Amino acid sequence: MDVVAELERIFNPRGVAIIGASNKPGNLGSFFLGGFIQQCFDRDKLYVVHPAESDVNGVRAYPTAQAIPYDVDLAIVVSPRDTVPSVVADCAAKGIKGVVVCTSGFSEHGADGKRLQRQITKIARAGGTRVIGPNCVGIFCPQTGLVNFAGVMPKRSGSVGMFSHSGSMSVSFPIAASGLGIYFSKAVSYGNECDLNAADFLEYFCHDPNTQIILGYVEGVTDGRRFFEVARDVAKRKPVLLWKGGVSNVGSRSAASHTGAIAGSSRVWNAVFKQTGMVPVGSEEEMLDLLQAFHYLPRPRGKRVAIVSATGGMGVALADACIEYGLEVASLSRATQKRLREVVPSVGTCIHNPVDLGMMSAFDVQLSVHAIEALAADDRVDIIFKSVGGSNADYIRKEAAALRGFDKPIMLVTNPAMKVRMEEIKPVKGVAVYRAGRRAALVASKMVQYQHYLSE
Amino acid sequence: MDVVAELERIFNPRGVAIIGASNKPGNLGSFFLGGFIQQCFDRDKLYVVHPAESDVNGVRAYPTAQAIPYDVDLAIVVSPRDTVPSVVADCAAKGIKGVVVCTSGFSEHGADGKRLQRQITKIARAGGTRVIGPNCVGIFCPQTGLVNFAGVMPKRSGSVGMFSHSGSMSVSFPIAASGLGIYFSKAVSYGNECDLNAADFLEYFCHDPNTQIILGYVEGVTDGRRFFEVARDVAKRKPVLLWKGGVSNVGSRSAASHTGAIAGSSRVWNAVFKQTGMVPVGSEEEMLDLLQAFHYLPRPRGKRVAIVSATGGMGVALADACIEYGLEVASLSRATQKRLREVVPSVGTCIHNPVDLGMMSAFDVQLSVHAIEALAADDRVDIIFKSVGGSNADYIRKEAAALRGFDKPIMLVTNPAMKVRMEEIKPVKGVAVYRAGRRAALVASKMVQYQHYLSE
Repeated sequence: MDVVAELERIFNPRGVAIIGASNKPGNLGSFFLGGFIQQCFDRDKLYVVHPAESDVNGVRAYPTAQAIPYDVDLAIVVSPRDTVPSVVADCAAKGIKGVVVCTSGFSEHGADGKRLQRQITKIARAGGTRVIGPNCVGIFCPQTGLVNFAGVMPKRSGSVGMFSHSGSMSVSFPIAASGLGIYFSKAVSYGNECDLNAADFLEYFCHDPNTQIILGYVEGVTDGRRFFEVARDVAKRKPVLLWKGGVSNVGSRSAASHTGAIAGSSRVWNAVFKQTGMVPVGSEEEMLDLLQAFHYLPRPRGKRVAIVSATGGMGVALADACIEYGLEVASLSRATQKRLREVVPSVGTCIHNPVDLGMMSAFDVQLSVHAIEALAADDRVDIIFKSVGGSNADYIRKEAAALRGFDKPIMLVTNPAMKVRMEEIKPVKGVAVYRAGRRAALVASKMVQYQHYLSE
Repeated sequence: MDVVAELERIFNPRGVAIIGASNKPGNLGSFFLGGFIQQCFDRDKLYVVHPAESDVNGVRAYPTAQAIPYDVDLAIVVSPRDTVPSVVADCAAKGIKGVVVCTSGFSEHGADGKRLQRQITKIARAGGTRVIGPNCVGIFCPQTGLVNFAGVMPKRSGSVGMFSHSGSMSVSFPIAASGLGIYFSKAVSYGNECDLNAADFLEYFCHDPNTQIILGYVEGVTDGRRFFEVARDVAKRKPVLLWKGGVSNVGSRSAASHTGAIAGSSRVWNAVFKQTGMVPVGSEEEMLDLLQAFHYLPRPRGKRVAIVSATGGMGVALADACIEYGLEVASLSRATQKRLREVVPSVGTCIHNPVDLGMMSAFDVQLSVHAIEALAADDRVDIIFKSVGGSNADYIRKEAAALRGFDKPIMLVTNPAMKVRMEEIKPVKGVAVYRAGRRAALVASKMVQYQHYLSE
């Protein structure tokens, strides 16, 4: 069975065993168990393995995995560190295809831990089972009810797949994205990656028909050559937004103590990004900013931007930001300028790019719509930046809705006074919403680079 | 009278005349008039000048400023462009000390506009009155009830003074800052600065006892030499956070059509920042991020940071961000490590810097408090970065409150999943709150640079 088929089985298990859940209050295993139940995983296919209990939180418990008289394809292991080798052996003997080891204290934790981790890998390989982890929070798949952190994950399924060294990132990005109306197909945190690694998950997401955009957070890769080759292949088909953690010396040392990863130099990683077409991500905010664009916007055909502002100051700021990130402020056609002259008031405004619609546009969404119709029809314009007129959620929603449906990406930039949550103004198809011009410009420049890579 | 005394009179006027307000619906002057009334400016000291009306919105109207039989120190002019020279002459004849010309269509709008603007300046100078604008939204002073944009400005007075080429920035920053619990003493937008300019306002804020932090948004300066000298003097006494708009060629062209400003090269401006000690600001978000730090945090004594995270991934991300911005990840004293060993759980954590408190810290604020007590007592630590454990507003508020009162700056960084508005988790004395590690690191590095400048 190849790794894609193996992971497909793991994400769609016929049964799941939680190993290490008990009736002790505050027990981590019960936390996972409760999470699966909350996420609507079929209770009849859920089992607990515990040496002494026969029932945990209403779920039938067995002394070993082998004692479970039903098909089990996935085990979630939270039992104490020193029990993990024998637990993995038990899972392999039962014929379980995937074992997620959440327990910590392995390669990130001294010589003893390293030795134990090697032992796990050996047992799993000999027994024909695959391991995710150890030292991770496991896998999230809303469609089949698998959950990595109880009580907080979105129930809705979507088209974003994520692989992550970090457990917290694999939890927080699906939550954060749901605030933008974007949902995940799967997210997997793989911790110390003693067996299945970043390249495996990347390959899986490439083949997964439910995944259209791939996010990654890696602190290093175990098999650099294979990761590189898989990434180069995948990025041609689906955008891969990759945040490389541990780029600094200290970050790299910290990564070693976090997941035992060897981080690699930033020079090497710059080359990897350039040659694979993966989109480099610099921070948590940038990840969400990029995700929003790749999810909602049509792809830009080039780097020429039109800027439309409701105030002169924002126009200047947007122009600075676009130039800073290598975009080009388009020189508009005569026809466009003529159309703009017809719709834009004559005083306190500007019909050259950056176009300033003046203060009245804060009270008149149609003015923006007319101006953007003119700009979207101009062959010299690839991307449109629009600073939003009003500052309350209603106005922004109204403006975003009025601007949907153009075939060029529209970056709506709110002004600093906007005191609303992104959830209140969800972006719409064709219109992404940003809280700062520089963030929108950075995103647009990375989309342009990605398109450029694809066309080469 | 020097410019400080002149501006003091303008901000504390014995009477205000709104020139150009009428009973016509949608009239801009009435909008200003309504704003003054809403902002609780004393109605008895408010007058309208209009050639035909005798009463506008319940306020007594006079045909000219000279006809007002009371003391008037400030006029707000929104009458049509071509009337402005005679209006300014009338104000000067009445002895009004300050005239704010909101009307647009002057130096930013062709040769005609330039000529008219020169005329205004000449009339004002001859008549002994000072002009703010034209092409601006005027002045905001909550203490005396002056307002630049009706219905939206905070009523509360604070310690931040702002001068801005852009009207919208002078409106949106006071609103945005109020969401962080920070309030303004005054904000002034000066548009085409035909008379009073950036250097004048900077000098005023330096002397204003109500102003402790100064923000500026400039697209260029009219008298570079004087601005430089004033800035160098002021920045030694109060932090000046300056956003220079129009740093790119296109931004600069846009600035010219916005306020007629000559933007100047970015090389020159880099030198200005370096030599004056003003803090350079790159975007609207950065302005608010910096303001938060300068308002709430004690000044850092150096650039050595301790990083404390609730998850390994955030620790790595924070370390990368700190190194990227030139901060130094402190090597902790033995005593500190001993104390950390006593309070931090032993598995899934790290007691070296970056310190990882592990997942349990998401449920236990006291764990963070104990760790930060240890770090704050370490002479090798100047600044503390803490990634927040929980992701709801209650938890973040609780954590911020628990960490207040240390004498070292604490930068609390929320995780990406946090879906709350900043207003819901207001920062507190000693603890600033940021939505991304890189933003916090950039702010800390700029505070360090400012302190370094002061100590030279």
